[in-house]
Amino acid sequence: MALIDKLQWRAAIKKFDHTKKLTTEQLNALLDAVQLSPSGAGLQPYKILVVEDAEIREKLREAAYGQAQLTQSSHVIIFAAETHVNADFVAKYIDLIAQTRNVGRETLVGFEQSILNNVNNQTEDQRVISAAKQTYIALGILLAAAADMGIDACPMEGFQAGKFDEILGLDKLGLTSTVIAPIGYRSDEDVYSKMAKVRRPKEELFIHI
Amino acid sequence: MALIDKLQWRAAIKKFDHTKKLTTEQLNALLDAVQLSPSGAGLQPYKILVVEDAEIREKLREAAYGQAQLTQSSHVIIFAAETHVNADFVAKYIDLIAQTRNVGRETLVGFEQSILNNVNNQTEDQRVISAAKQTYIALGILLAAAADMGIDACPMEGFQAGKFDEILGLDKLGLTSTVIAPIGYRSDEDVYSKMAKVRRPKEELFIHI
Repeated sequence: MALIDKLQWRAAIKKFDHTKKLTTEQLNALLDAVQLSPSGAGLQPYKILVVEDAEIREKLREAAYGQAQLTQSSHVIIFAAETHVNADFVAKYIDLIAQTRNVGRETLVGFEQSILNNVNNQTEDQRVISAAKQTYIALGILLAAAADMGIDACPMEGFQAGKFDEILGLDKLGLTSTVIAPIGYRSDEDVYSKMAKVRRPKEELFIHI
Repeated sequence: MALIDKLQWRAAIKKFDHTKKLTTEQLNALLDAVQLSPSGAGLQPYKILVVEDAEIREKLREAAYGQAQLTQSSHVIIFAAETHVNADFVAKYIDLIAQTRNVGRETLVGFEQSILNNVNNQTEDQRVISAAKQTYIALGILLAAAADMGIDACPMEGFQAGKFDEILGLDKLGLTSTVIAPIGYRSDEDVYSKMAKVRRPKEELFIHI
């Protein structure tokens, strides 16, 4: 089945079958895909939490207006933007490139400087927003990869980020939660996934020039 | 080939083969995938420009620091966030749901109100940022779908959004450009796609709880 058919199949699942769990292999394959997500300059200014713990998920559910996906899904994926994208963060990334490609660090100084110029041109708020945007690319990749594997997901912005950060101790890690996606398998009782998918018509959505 | 292998194959292509164009069928299949992108509450608060015109692309290239992908690729995809997500915009979306699912509009009033509450709780700037984030999900879906089809792309934030908006007349349409992706086929001379892919190691990127 082509990806397009799988994207047609996918839906934001509200009611998961809590008896069905992803296998370790499935979860790892999904995370492999997310790891490969592109990001601005390749910085990957985020971390991704994979939450299985039942007690923590109860707390997260409370901080997500009681939505059952938090506890009924197999795992909850939480994207968290780095709040301290600075010279240190960039330097570590440049180190990683040098190491991965086995090239001298000095050959990357121009690239490092161009990233730093961008970073320094942004306010602290703008940096976090920029990092948050990159997490949405990773979310898109997660949703495509999940659909490709026949795994369900429910992308969600409806949660209290401040409370999530507190429950997960993200402040101390220099992170802030941006968007989440419970993953697992839909229940037969899920209602919305049986309805026609609503999308803006192509003639309205696309402008050809 | 599984999507994961295709994501491994993909790379941000700097040098496209300008003699290779997407067929109409390929372009339409890609746009079908982008149309299916999920978005917060399903609002799809954006439009997507598909630019083929050579003269416009020359101008866009100038506004993108001269980067050759703008003119050497097959098409340039430009994501543009809606700058006026308001009661009218939401009402049209609710109309679309009622029409697509053949349900009475009155059954959707609660959903409409919940979206409006969210919108009204945001400043104008926050609404545009929120819409921009949704375009990054669509970018993620585009990149996954392109990789799935063996089509190359180069996601780019390095362009002058204000100038793009001017060249494309986006202001008048209540839109602002957020992120772009030239698409097409890589040249044999593309350098970076032959290098090892650099990604933060899984033990650093993921936190399991």
